[in-house]
Amino acid sequence: MRGFFIANKIRNFILQYFNMTQYSFRNDYSEGAHEKILKAISENNLVQEEGYGEDNISIKAAGLIRERTGNPDADVHFVSGGTQANLIVISALLKPHESVIAPATGHITVHEAGAIEATGHKINAVETKDGKLRITDIQKEIDFHEDEHMVLPKMVFISNSTETGCIYTKTELQELSECCKSKNLILYLDGARLGSALTSDKNDLTLKEISDLVDIFYIGGTKNGALLGEAIVINKAELKDHFRFHLKQKGALLAKGRVIGAQFLELFKDDLYFELSKHANTMAMKLAKGIKEAGHEFFTEPSTNQIFPILPIALIEKLSQKFGFYLWRKTEDDKAIIRLVTSWATKEEAVDSFIDELQKY
Amino acid sequence: MRGFFIANKIRNFILQYFNMTQYSFRNDYSEGAHEKILKAISENNLVQEEGYGEDNISIKAAGLIRERTGNPDADVHFVSGGTQANLIVISALLKPHESVIAPATGHITVHEAGAIEATGHKINAVETKDGKLRITDIQKEIDFHEDEHMVLPKMVFISNSTETGCIYTKTELQELSECCKSKNLILYLDGARLGSALTSDKNDLTLKEISDLVDIFYIGGTKNGALLGEAIVINKAELKDHFRFHLKQKGALLAKGRVIGAQFLELFKDDLYFELSKHANTMAMKLAKGIKEAGHEFFTEPSTNQIFPILPIALIEKLSQKFGFYLWRKTEDDKAIIRLVTSWATKEEAVDSFIDELQKY
Amino acid sequence: MRGFFIANKIRNFILQYFNMTQYSFRNDYSEGAHEKILKAISENNLVQEEGYGEDNISIKAAGLIRERTGNPDADVHFVSGGTQANLIVISALLKPHESVIAPATGHITVHEAGAIEATGHKINAVETKDGKLRITDIQKEIDFHEDEHMVLPKMVFISNSTETGCIYTKTELQELSECCKSKNLILYLDGARLGSALTSDKNDLTLKEISDLVDIFYIGGTKNGALLGEAIVINKAELKDHFRFHLKQKGALLAKGRVIGAQFLELFKDDLYFELSKHANTMAMKLAKGIKEAGHEFFTEPSTNQIFPILPIALIEKLSQKFGFYLWRKTEDDKAIIRLVTSWATKEEAVDSFIDELQKY
Amino acid sequence: MRGFFIANKIRNFILQYFNMTQYSFRNDYSEGAHEKILKAISENNLVQEEGYGEDNISIKAAGLIRERTGNPDADVHFVSGGTQANLIVISALLKPHESVIAPATGHITVHEAGAIEATGHKINAVETKDGKLRITDIQKEIDFHEDEHMVLPKMVFISNSTETGCIYTKTELQELSECCKSKNLILYLDGARLGSALTSDKNDLTLKEISDLVDIFYIGGTKNGALLGEAIVINKAELKDHFRFHLKQKGALLAKGRVIGAQFLELFKDDLYFELSKHANTMAMKLAKGIKEAGHEFFTEPSTNQIFPILPIALIEKLSQKFGFYLWRKTEDDKAIIRLVTSWATKEEAVDSFIDELQKY
Repeated sequence: MRGFFIANKIRNFILQYFNMTQYSFRNDYSEGAHEKILKAISENNLVQEEGYGEDNISIKAAGLIRERTGNPDADVHFVSGGTQANLIVISALLKPHESVIAPATGHITVHEAGAIEATGHKINAVETKDGKLRITDIQKEIDFHEDEHMVLPKMVFISNSTETGCIYTKTELQELSECCKSKNLILYLDGARLGSALTSDKNDLTLKEISDLVDIFYIGGTKNGALLGEAIVINKAELKDHFRFHLKQKGALLAKGRVIGAQFLELFKDDLYFELSKHANTMAMKLAKGIKEAGHEFFTEPSTNQIFPILPIALIEKLSQKFGFYLWRKTEDDKAIIRLVTSWATKEEAVDSFIDELQKY
Repeated sequence: MRGFFIANKIRNFILQYFNMTQYSFRNDYSEGAHEKILKAISENNLVQEEGYGEDNISIKAAGLIRERTGNPDADVHFVSGGTQANLIVISALLKPHESVIAPATGHITVHEAGAIEATGHKINAVETKDGKLRITDIQKEIDFHEDEHMVLPKMVFISNSTETGCIYTKTELQELSECCKSKNLILYLDGARLGSALTSDKNDLTLKEISDLVDIFYIGGTKNGALLGEAIVINKAELKDHFRFHLKQKGALLAKGRVIGAQFLELFKDDLYFELSKHANTMAMKLAKGIKEAGHEFFTEPSTNQIFPILPIALIEKLSQKFGFYLWRKTEDDKAIIRLVTSWATKEEAVDSFIDELQKY
Repeated sequence: MRGFFIANKIRNFILQYFNMTQYSFRNDYSEGAHEKILKAISENNLVQEEGYGEDNISIKAAGLIRERTGNPDADVHFVSGGTQANLIVISALLKPHESVIAPATGHITVHEAGAIEATGHKINAVETKDGKLRITDIQKEIDFHEDEHMVLPKMVFISNSTETGCIYTKTELQELSECCKSKNLILYLDGARLGSALTSDKNDLTLKEISDLVDIFYIGGTKNGALLGEAIVINKAELKDHFRFHLKQKGALLAKGRVIGAQFLELFKDDLYFELSKHANTMAMKLAKGIKEAGHEFFTEPSTNQIFPILPIALIEKLSQKFGFYLWRKTEDDKAIIRLVTSWATKEEAVDSFIDELQKY
Repeated sequence: MRGFFIANKIRNFILQYFNMTQYSFRNDYSEGAHEKILKAISENNLVQEEGYGEDNISIKAAGLIRERTGNPDADVHFVSGGTQANLIVISALLKPHESVIAPATGHITVHEAGAIEATGHKINAVETKDGKLRITDIQKEIDFHEDEHMVLPKMVFISNSTETGCIYTKTELQELSECCKSKNLILYLDGARLGSALTSDKNDLTLKEISDLVDIFYIGGTKNGALLGEAIVINKAELKDHFRFHLKQKGALLAKGRVIGAQFLELFKDDLYFELSKHANTMAMKLAKGIKEAGHEFFTEPSTNQIFPILPIALIEKLSQKFGFYLWRKTEDDKAIIRLVTSWATKEEAVDSFIDELQKY
């Protein structure tokens, strides 16, 4: 997945050397933060606050998230990134012999440098077509693990949107939720791109419904306009115990926790969180429309801020001179899947320019 | 793989209740130890020896293994079982970010209750048809792992014979060895059933050649007539450092290490090790011949003490009343693969009786 | 503590070279096993049994231990050694942020090569005069650990007899038990030398009382006449869950678990366990008496099979030519503490000979 | 150490309820960031940059640190906090059986919720009078750890300034450096408060000298005016390998790594880093002078931004109504040690007001 079409560092060096600029659709964290968020960080900067996330700003932000998720009893903890959120949640909640069922394309499965295993837990990786787990996948894993010679699956990891840009429907999430309840599995949702999922045209879930259906999840800030920060939301009472010990032990309690609290306060006090996601989705849909109109197909149906067109190699080479993006993988017959990612900061001109370039081909 | 045709414990209860006896082909560790081994353990019992594997008996046994493997500089360490050997070797030799490439059917991958992950390391599981890794599998894993967002494969785990009863040819092992050398990967061989591999009719490798071709391996005692014990052999100099610390830390240094040393001394002072394996193989080949003559096929070609016939369900049910064995998995059309395991202790009458029963069908 | 008066390996080399024999009081695992135990291992050797500790022999032995401990609901698991028992119990029962309070001289604290930390847990080491924890020690540790910036003490580790040969009185153990209950701490007793404690002249505790007062403990076999093996006894219901997963994951489930089961069956079917300990204690008391009569003092009052006389350096040097023992540490004025350990196999002539030698000085 | 004089949360609640303001000397991270740093974060906010610390801002900041430390070959990595820095450095560089020698008061020893043990490593805690390790302490630990039944000390952890406000002299650090080199120990310096140490009136070390004398260290940003961020500097070539894998695995690679890079660029492009520390020290020295003039003594001689006066309990109670600070511990005769911490943001009026209040007593 991280295969660069032209090796990233070499290309950047060349681009800088020739003073060329290239617009990047490589990810949703290339820019800094939305200006309102920068402002929020600066406000009340000299007021003395408690350390380690017990400041009034973080407390307010947590309260707001409880309100928005419709769960007044939830525990909310802020951490600095997604891998950190995942490794803390999983290591805090699983016993040594317990494992987590996850898609083979899941972030924890491939792109966290073994962070979950480093805390001692096996990931039961499941092949999927779109990065989404189904209840049949879960049943199969449960059936496979029979006795104490194998690990004991205890958690189900899903991401919404998935690493391939897909989202769960309400029906699908309800099924997963019931399945996990009936099997006494913890349902954990990685929401690094939750905003993009919730503001997708194809989405039929609300933040409250998601919060109702999963036991624990995190709301991603970094990929949605924040400088850094994810908000872990623990809904299920028995998962809350001593969570701050785990945050501290894994190096996640920032002395100035206010820096994340302030950002989430800004994101959720009005609708900034959703506005930023919506913009990213709109830009992605415009890109998708242009690509479709130019006659190209997609690996997965575009619905969020990550889209995966299948393009001729020659066209990809041409586009890569002006735009940054990742090559996902080659398909047959001289074509390849690329990943295009838009963000809260994506400029419409860049999108237009990409489509122009594509149409020239 | 551990799916019992009739749930094991219920069946045993029933069998005991009705005072029935049933001959078991379920595994190669149902009996105790070969009588020579029992005798060896008892000898010099009251002589005072150093503890923790530094006794004269273990020192002699290690020397004998160095001789037999043709590697006078090898370090030899005795541990009590295969999972213990695997978890110690892997955790001692890998750094936190490094992973081990292994077959999806490998013992470490499925049947060690997450022992490897519990020491912090990811297993890169590879689907195979016979439990054997090829150099193309290794290349694919190396190519897939591109940067620091993923783990770094550093070791290759193979077993000989494999968990599905297959063995490596000299050519195959040479290729793997060269591949690992060229990529700076540690080649580790799990020899829980090494005796059976080396005495197979189809084998063209010697113990010395195996020792030359791999960096580290273990010679299995438990499944070849010993009461307990595996001998870890470290060939590559730079892997030897401080290994006893790792043994101690993982609870593997037995205070009376002589109990394992004495068994390996007995197994290797003459050819007992190979005689016991040979008997197990002979019994398996006789079983295989009878099954083939009765017109049945096999999942993998029989060559060691584990064979995998494909039999009609009705026949399997009938056989299961008199014999113990594991159901491997169902195939299409009312048939299933079963696993039959013979050992150093398998009685020829039991084999004959199994074939008789089969032929009656 | 493991400081040898003359470096162990050099000495052994010299002794072997000159074909000298030297009687060792270095530990209680220098000999093999009691002959009844060797016989028990050999019995029914060819009967086919279930693997991994589910054999009928282990099941019977566990039943016997339940009977002897007066706890019909206890779970009993056999493992191969003390470090293995300790690391499995502690890692199975503690969550990642929880720690174990232990004496600074405790086996887990100093002599297990970091086995406990390797499973992720901190040991809160407490200085003591005799290796015994008091409730004031526990209170102090609880008070010290205030919040989530520190670990959370959740278990108390004690050994009986201790690493310095001392034992707990009934009153002391009752106090510890109540203290742990009131603070919701798990009380775990390492019984590597439990036999010696229970058969001490100074002991006022029974096996049943110990079993009542602690949540989980293990009965040591290796240091009391067995070849290998310790029996973990779990009294408290909520600590039993999934324990076999932890045994498997840490490499402790022996394929031929019967080898340990048979030994414990023999040890507890009559009173062999206590007879062997009693002999060791009698030999130690005879040694102590001789040493006292020769005018020497002790570091801790002799009461079990480990005694710690304080002797002049010159005398120690002389004794070390005929006897093996560890130098514990130097005291002031040209004296040093040595450790003498007796066992089930200690010959009375060796004891007499040691006292003779001492008196000649 | 974290013992609050009046329990923190209750006090805060009361203070808020009565709308009281109280000036806090509790720590050096109560305020946000210096305004220049906030500005630096906002600059070039919309320029697209590489993710995960490979952005041009972080690259420039790293270059600047290489220059300032006088080590053009050093590797520089930015992480979000001190516990994260410590756990990554230690787990990346030690093998499973290796331990780290640290003061009993060291941050890793007591105040990181078992973060180091959670990565599998034992800390060999050494009692000291001022939080500083001496070469005799190291020698003692090396001597104590004799064989594979114990851990193997491989790293020495020191902090400058220490957790009790003390600093190392050039001579002391040179001795430690030579000692570690001669014993093949890694010397690691925790520089959470390195600025305060380097700008102390009593300091005779430069940043370059420190960088020369230790193998690896980190420069603390969070406690010296940054919002978050510490810069790990690896001097010794053989410690550099694959470090980014460890950062990723422990959740420390921020997608927008620029947020830390920008802060260190600002701190080191001129002398802001040292100016901020100097201010904190000046305020602390003024506090110390006032306290001394009022006739009180100190637990350790004031030299950095943490000072530890010994005051009468009655005075402490009075001061605590207007000022926030931690109670360190009681001494005899109705007195107690308190900790006062100043920072880059401490207002001189607050210092004056504290001294006034003290003098009124």
